[in-house]
Amino acid sequence: MVTEVNVNQNDHLEAMAHAVLEHCEQRGWTLATAESLTAGMLCARLCDIPGASQVVRGGVIAYATDVKQDVLSVDKRRLADMGPVDQLVSEQMAEGACRVMRTDVGVSTTGVAGPEPQAGHAVGEVHIAVVTPQGSAHRKLELSGNRQSIRHQTVDAALAMLLRVLTDSTP
Amino acid sequence: MVTEVNVNQNDHLEAMAHAVLEHCEQRGWTLATAESLTAGMLCARLCDIPGASQVVRGGVIAYATDVKQDVLSVDKRRLADMGPVDQLVSEQMAEGACRVMRTDVGVSTTGVAGPEPQAGHAVGEVHIAVVTPQGSAHRKLELSGNRQSIRHQTVDAALAMLLRVLTDSTP
Repeated sequence: MVTEVNVNQNDHLEAMAHAVLEHCEQRGWTLATAESLTAGMLCARLCDIPGASQVVRGGVIAYATDVKQDVLSVDKRRLADMGPVDQLVSEQMAEGACRVMRTDVGVSTTGVAGPEPQAGHAVGEVHIAVVTPQGSAHRKLELSGNRQSIRHQTVDAALAMLLRVLTDSTP
Repeated sequence: MVTEVNVNQNDHLEAMAHAVLEHCEQRGWTLATAESLTAGMLCARLCDIPGASQVVRGGVIAYATDVKQDVLSVDKRRLADMGPVDQLVSEQMAEGACRVMRTDVGVSTTGVAGPEPQAGHAVGEVHIAVVTPQGSAHRKLELSGNRQSIRHQTVDAALAMLLRVLTDSTP
């Protein structure tokens, strides 16, 4: 059964998504996502907000590793050497989202949702990157919980990171 | 507060997503999504299932109209004439998903989630298309409810349609 905690968590995510869109709109910036383990949850969350289409142009769900390379232009060599759970890969995914969707802001998620570890990376290792016209940011998370919880925590962290980067930028 | 109905609905969606992946796997088919109003919810729902990466390669969230044209190669003239809430647009989106993500199966969603009508289309008009190596299918829905409800019903209908088309296909 769903508890009150989840309902409050939902309000919290909605408030963050709303603030992200508002900050982008104030700056005249459009936004795109590049998602691996969250597979669309992050973009869907942003588009929960009526009027999201003023800011969100779209996103690439790059679930398979070679989609990261072929569609988002993540460096092939880096993917071969490091695998998809990697800082540089997350940064190049965010840049790829901006390029493919022709936006100012890009945000990416890549990591291990489980249930099994992946190529030497533990379940819960997640990388998030944000790029804006004023700079970029990366964060590595070590999350615990089951598959669903890790994906939800990743969406939460990505929205929080977007919000921090946008708040720090000049309108 | 979330009721038992939502929990059962969740089980129902999970069962459909599971069956869709299983049918694809039996046929050796991979799958991609092209989402407009659902903005990633459909792909995320499929990837709720552990092992989804055996089938789902990724998806394109084409929220802005010109992303449908530029990334998914939906016919520019058709978009100009009919707008994005259209049968042919939904079919070309599903084909575009297969092409961009190099998959066997593509599924698309486009429609009006609201709160406002869009270019002569009422809130709740939704088009879903599925393409497989054995054929294609389209469905027009006239849904009622609020923005969130319409998006959730669209995911539900898309999974049901995928399942029907896959069940009818030859393993």
